[in-house]
Amino acid sequence: MSAEPASGSVPARRGRPGYDQATVLRRAIDVFNRQGYDATSMGDLARELGLTKSAIYHHVPSKEHLLAAALDEALDALDSTVTAIAATSRQPAEARLRAAIHSSVEILVDHLPAVTLLLRARGNSEVEQAALERRRAIDGVLADLVRDACREGTLRDDIDPELISRLLFGMVNSSVEWFHPGGSVDARVLADAITGIAFDGLTRG
Amino acid sequence: MSAEPASGSVPARRGRPGYDQATVLRRAIDVFNRQGYDATSMGDLARELGLTKSAIYHHVPSKEHLLAAALDEALDALDSTVTAIAATSRQPAEARLRAAIHSSVEILVDHLPAVTLLLRARGNSEVEQAALERRRAIDGVLADLVRDACREGTLRDDIDPELISRLLFGMVNSSVEWFHPGGSVDARVLADAITGIAFDGLTRG
Repeated sequence: MSAEPASGSVPARRGRPGYDQATVLRRAIDVFNRQGYDATSMGDLARELGLTKSAIYHHVPSKEHLLAAALDEALDALDSTVTAIAATSRQPAEARLRAAIHSSVEILVDHLPAVTLLLRARGNSEVEQAALERRRAIDGVLADLVRDACREGTLRDDIDPELISRLLFGMVNSSVEWFHPGGSVDARVLADAITGIAFDGLTRG
Repeated sequence: MSAEPASGSVPARRGRPGYDQATVLRRAIDVFNRQGYDATSMGDLARELGLTKSAIYHHVPSKEHLLAAALDEALDALDSTVTAIAATSRQPAEARLRAAIHSSVEILVDHLPAVTLLLRARGNSEVEQAALERRRAIDGVLADLVRDACREGTLRDDIDPELISRLLFGMVNSSVEWFHPGGSVDARVLADAITGIAFDGLTRG
């Protein structure tokens, strides 16, 4: 994870540390996840970056600004991928659902801190409420895939499709609580385990 | 959910609202879940209860005290049940695992606010760290059940038992994010759906 400057990065200023926007965002997300967004002040962010409280405003207009950028990072990735998969209508719904789960797991792993922040958002501000609305729309696309797969007869019909959808993506999302990059479980192992359990079950056939 | 006085309740005082400890705890847990424990002050709790900032100290020594009581409520229920089930060694591990999942779901539903608070605890204080340690011990008992069931040959052996355990209880725990008492899904429907998906899979047999 190198600190490559993003476009629109703020150049280093003489006499105080200079950070590009991507680094500021990454460090801020870490603080938000560690101590909670609501409990984090601009002063905390300044301390984390080794800046004075006035210097941090050269990098960040507000902490809401950072929260919005972080939530958009996760939502943009999920949105574009899930929408694209759902739209490949030549495939049966079950195959699209498996692909959507695999991609969701990859995004969760690739954008772990941003996705963690997204999944902890409770709607305590307008920024969080807007994010939760986008998240509900994505969940709706996934729930439609589950419903379509049930209707096509490939999935069992004795559990409500909405409940299936909540539990399935609950299992995916719960990974943020324990997944660590570089551990024995990588994105592919995780995605295969989730689809293996969810579609085929744990009981030895 | 009536506000029955708990043993050790504080009697009503003239001129200000009187609350028993169970009510204070329940209202506090709701505030913690709504706005985050770290972001909640004693002043917020006083406002919630319609008390002055000095009057609340007649009911509550500190917010840590309430947090500890809330986390203990969830942990005591989980601990005693999971330990008892795991110890019924006449049963095969798979049957004990199914029973443990069913009971965990019932506890989650019966103690939803306290379990929600427990699952959001990040270890930001000694109280939270002690709770996380108790939670890890319970998770360890459950993981042992999964391992035993894999060893007994009833569960598939192509997924690491620890990963199975994390995903299985991740699916259970994720229910706190959407479950609402009185909705179309009750504890039994939820527990049956989780065991149905996890053991038998979604694919139509």
